[in-house]
Amino acid sequence: MPEEHSRGARLVVGLISGTSMDGIDAALVRISGPATQPRVRLLGFETYRYSAPVRRRILRIAAGEAATAGEISQLNFLLGELFAEATLRVCRTARVPLGRLAAIGTHGQTIYHQGSPTREAGRLVTSTLQVAEPAVIAERTGAPVVADFRPADMAAGGQGAPLVPLVDYLLLRDARRGTVALNIGGIANFTVIPANARPEDVFGFDTGPGNMIIDGLVRHFSHGQKTYDAGGRWAARGRVIEPLLAQVLREPFFQRQPPKSAGREEFGQRFVEHFFLKRRGARAEDLLRTATELTPRTITDALDRFVLGSISIHRLIVSGGGAHNRLLVSRLSQLLPRLRVQLSDACGLPVDAKEAIAFAVLADRTMHGLPGNLPRVTGARRAVVLGKISRP
Amino acid sequence: MPEEHSRGARLVVGLISGTSMDGIDAALVRISGPATQPRVRLLGFETYRYSAPVRRRILRIAAGEAATAGEISQLNFLLGELFAEATLRVCRTARVPLGRLAAIGTHGQTIYHQGSPTREAGRLVTSTLQVAEPAVIAERTGAPVVADFRPADMAAGGQGAPLVPLVDYLLLRDARRGTVALNIGGIANFTVIPANARPEDVFGFDTGPGNMIIDGLVRHFSHGQKTYDAGGRWAARGRVIEPLLAQVLREPFFQRQPPKSAGREEFGQRFVEHFFLKRRGARAEDLLRTATELTPRTITDALDRFVLGSISIHRLIVSGGGAHNRLLVSRLSQLLPRLRVQLSDACGLPVDAKEAIAFAVLADRTMHGLPGNLPRVTGARRAVVLGKISRP
Repeated sequence: MPEEHSRGARLVVGLISGTSMDGIDAALVRISGPATQPRVRLLGFETYRYSAPVRRRILRIAAGEAATAGEISQLNFLLGELFAEATLRVCRTARVPLGRLAAIGTHGQTIYHQGSPTREAGRLVTSTLQVAEPAVIAERTGAPVVADFRPADMAAGGQGAPLVPLVDYLLLRDARRGTVALNIGGIANFTVIPANARPEDVFGFDTGPGNMIIDGLVRHFSHGQKTYDAGGRWAARGRVIEPLLAQVLREPFFQRQPPKSAGREEFGQRFVEHFFLKRRGARAEDLLRTATELTPRTITDALDRFVLGSISIHRLIVSGGGAHNRLLVSRLSQLLPRLRVQLSDACGLPVDAKEAIAFAVLADRTMHGLPGNLPRVTGARRAVVLGKISRP
Repeated sequence: MPEEHSRGARLVVGLISGTSMDGIDAALVRISGPATQPRVRLLGFETYRYSAPVRRRILRIAAGEAATAGEISQLNFLLGELFAEATLRVCRTARVPLGRLAAIGTHGQTIYHQGSPTREAGRLVTSTLQVAEPAVIAERTGAPVVADFRPADMAAGGQGAPLVPLVDYLLLRDARRGTVALNIGGIANFTVIPANARPEDVFGFDTGPGNMIIDGLVRHFSHGQKTYDAGGRWAARGRVIEPLLAQVLREPFFQRQPPKSAGREEFGQRFVEHFFLKRRGARAEDLLRTATELTPRTITDALDRFVLGSISIHRLIVSGGGAHNRLLVSRLSQLLPRLRVQLSDACGLPVDAKEAIAFAVLADRTMHGLPGNLPRVTGARRAVVLGKISRP
């Protein structure tokens, strides 16, 4: 597969279950134009929720609890079935026969990610592990599946994340306006696209927690009845605990120079317990308000520290589940008065669908033999073709 | 990649670490002729031994001890580095520059295999898990890597094993003589190729333990100083414990109709302990002799029960580490007086290299868009293209 530049429109499904681990986002998109300059139209989007027992299993394993190789292997194939069903569902709703799919791009479900090397048997090793077996998805759908996007970047010395920045560049670049594309999932990350940028001008990184701490607190204080703070209304009843916020902001991750990436390893349950739940006498709404302040504060700090001093930015385009948290978005607007803060829907990319769309675009790149990482963003030595192709 | 039929010779490396988990077998082969009718010449073969700590980690995880997702993820990338080094080494010794490799086919290291469905969250799921990250191998070698050969067959309803039978068919079929190709690795399996067979006439299955029990006993009684019984000499000093042999032969696996596959789950450490090590007052050499009798007996029983009644067979071609066990091979000859028992070296396939060669041939199939499983052998609903392709 050399770098052919197909201009014909093709239908591609993008699949991801993010760090929130709620379920599978499936986006059906029509990609037209050459793979080097794709145009994207969203034809369908659905979220396929995990059942409570499945979600518990994933959370337990991703939290670092010991499991047998068999449990992880069975989970991989089980999630393959669920990712296939999510594909079937989004195509059925959009009345698109499976036979018309040119490809499926699946991020899978991350259960481990270690972007910084640790020593293993005398070698420095980074690694990442996503599950949801692509061979199962290919067999159930009859379409070629591109999966496992992160390992190739890590093998080339990168952190394997974030990968969406190239897609942000392809879909959101502007000749005259500097743009920051911000995604607030479990983790928050942004992509900086200077006005009239070339790919090598683009950079981005994880800024820290997005909804992960908020959601963890909501689950705890609602005794598992709620999974997120709708609209940020619970947090809005509380007040920021300034000493706690200051303490968390001193965490080394926030000071570190980019590129950097984060996950449940950094800001998962252990983090929530250590900083928030062990705080004696604090009210739930105040802890929530503090967690909801942490996200826009760390995003703003990262922009101030690593971006705005040197690059002219006009707009901040927000996507991800956090875009529904009005308190969070309004705090972002207040903390960044000089930027135009808008939701990605305004650019044809609904906030909930944007990440899944990105993996459809990345799959299209791989199917055309084009690289999918930005070395400046991930720290890789070179741009590489991402993913592995499974043929039905 | 449609079914092009390249006739030009191509260099392919096959990599496997089998159920013995001693190290990585790397075969460098020259494949000529169309991918549908390959001719194979072995240019180099090496075994890259695992260090003791690495081997212990693999054994521990494959034995079903609990580990974190992180440990398995790190092991995956660590083994990717080792599989890449095995490739570099076999190419260096053969003085073949990496740039000349058309592809690498890697089986990886199995840490779990469950070919019979179990219920997971209300669904029947089979699964398999091989580690040794192909993206790492692709990056270090610059060659396309085909990996993860088993999942596609399992997604199509197969047991994911054995996969070598198609290669046996391609390389060992004969117009006039019925052939059984027997591989004695940790597990023993054979392929039945009737005279003048078509692919759908071929079948095969795992017969049970090959060297797995013998090796387990040697490790135990030598206190880890030895890993196998060289030439079968230790066992030759003992006598078969007939009641123990009879007891083991009653295990349900041996009675089951093919297709069937086995692994460390069935005949690993737990099996060795339950049947052999807990036997009071038995001498080491008698237990070893009994284990060394079990392998040819179960192979012969399987031939008698499922093959020789209906198919005319002239020769039994033996490969795998067990081919070095003279006691075992001579017992096979004695138990099968009507067959010509010979080592695969006689067919240009050195006994230690044959499985690694097979994965080079299977990778060549996948690179040409050709299926790699035999549905009658694995139980799959259809022949499917195996593996996932990682591009450097």
